Amino acid sequence: MKTFQYTQIGVVRSCFTEKFGVPRQPGLVSDAPGIVELLPPFDNAEAFRGLEGFSHIWLFWHFHAIRPDGAWQATVRPPRLGGNRRIGVFASRSPYRPNPIGLSAVRLDRISRDSGRLNLHVRGLDLIDGTPILDIKPYLPYTDAIQANAGYAADAPDIHPVRFKPEVDVRLDELQQNGYPGLKGLIQNILELDPRPAYKRDDKREYGMRLYDLDVIWSVEDDAFVVVDIRCPESVQSDGNHRLPLIVNLG
Amino acid sequence: MKTFQYTQIGVVRSCFTEKFGVPRQPGLVSDAPGIVELLPPFDNAEAFRGLEGFSHIWLFWHFHAIRPDGAWQATVRPPRLGGNRRIGVFASRSPYRPNPIGLSAVRLDRISRDSGRLNLHVRGLDLIDGTPILDIKPYLPYTDAIQANAGYAADAPDIHPVRFKPEVDVRLDELQQNGYPGLKGLIQNILELDPRPAYKRDDKREYGMRLYDLDVIWSVEDDAFVVVDIRCPESVQSDGNHRLPLIVNLG
Repeated sequence: MKTFQYTQIGVVRSCFTEKFGVPRQPGLVSDAPGIVELLPPFDNAEAFRGLEGFSHIWLFWHFHAIRPDGAWQATVRPPRLGGNRRIGVFASRSPYRPNPIGLSAVRLDRISRDSGRLNLHVRGLDLIDGTPILDIKPYLPYTDAIQANAGYAADAPDIHPVRFKPEVDVRLDELQQNGYPGLKGLIQNILELDPRPAYKRDDKREYGMRLYDLDVIWSVEDDAFVVVDIRCPESVQSDGNHRLPLIVNLG
Repeated sequence: MKTFQYTQIGVVRSCFTEKFGVPRQPGLVSDAPGIVELLPPFDNAEAFRGLEGFSHIWLFWHFHAIRPDGAWQATVRPPRLGGNRRIGVFASRSPYRPNPIGLSAVRLDRISRDSGRLNLHVRGLDLIDGTPILDIKPYLPYTDAIQANAGYAADAPDIHPVRFKPEVDVRLDELQQNGYPGLKGLIQNILELDPRPAYKRDDKREYGMRLYDLDVIWSVEDDAFVVVDIRCPESVQSDGNHRLPLIVNLG
């Protein structure tokens, strides 16, 4: 069988520091901010000349945070079908595929050089911090934007109501003024898509989601998600290892 | 530098048997027909269950027909800019990029099992016969179809007038009834996009383009392209080796 070898050209710096909460497709959390940091020798500004004329770019990336036992299977159970109907892996965007290459269209805000590093500032990210980037291409609407029929995934996902406890609102005001701009909108945008895996939708518990270095705690009340606490852990894991999906039962 | 290895899962069977004439993006020649033939063990119909509900699919493929000396450079000269303006390789869809991964959205007509082989029948192909396929994903309009600004490539390419000599029309009628359905529309659709490389636009010559096993001969008259002959070479190269781009000066 013929194989092809590709080299990592960059790495993603993302607000999503663990898998739980990462949007299931790009653009759904339209403000989710991130940076694509280019690695040498690909951090040559000339190689990006003209890219700023494009509002959106394609990121090609490697699914690096999948389970170590994650061999591909012919069928998968996508969250969109409630996690109980099987479809073919090639009829899905599942990471557990023969070649775990990911594709994301994201908004390009600007390109900057910071402390010697070449950074692409993007929004609408659905990638976890540390994701390896393989290629970047301009988004060309005349060939990429298609009025297509999309089977079981024709519509955007449902939006769930999200509320914040009054004391959380106060905490959010503080945080937004101290290095976390737009945090409330970001949390709202993530939760309204219901990030819970289909097989773990147990209304009786609380859920914890890591965003940047914060733990966002929320529960289910009637049909809404309610943010009940935002915690700032004293020490943040900084070894670059990404934890596997974590839903802490805090109840 | 971290590298990733991927395995070929399929191969393209295309009407484009040489590079000259291959559309520069997918969908431009909307009827260009082809087949993605899955290779074992990826030719399991279960792995494609539900894909037929999608009108369009993404093909991920490897640029296998590039020049052997084709190392990537920071800047390229895209045909869209007349071949004389340089832009960054990551602001282009050039094949001469650090990781030569290609991306094409194509229409999915049907999936069939023929002589044991699992085949995806597609249209709008911009791939040369023999292109290795790495991944197939469903096209999801809610996340993939974006009203984006696209810098120097905002509009679809210009359309050039195409005419056929009367004796060629007769020949086309014969061919269309003998195994080449839709051939005339296909040739028209390819030529109206002007497949000539920007650096070889010499109006005084004739051009030859291989399509299936036919040689299509055309010339430039005033501002139109005129198909002057269609030849059926006695023996077709069938060793699977793809010739490098070929523009025969037949004049």
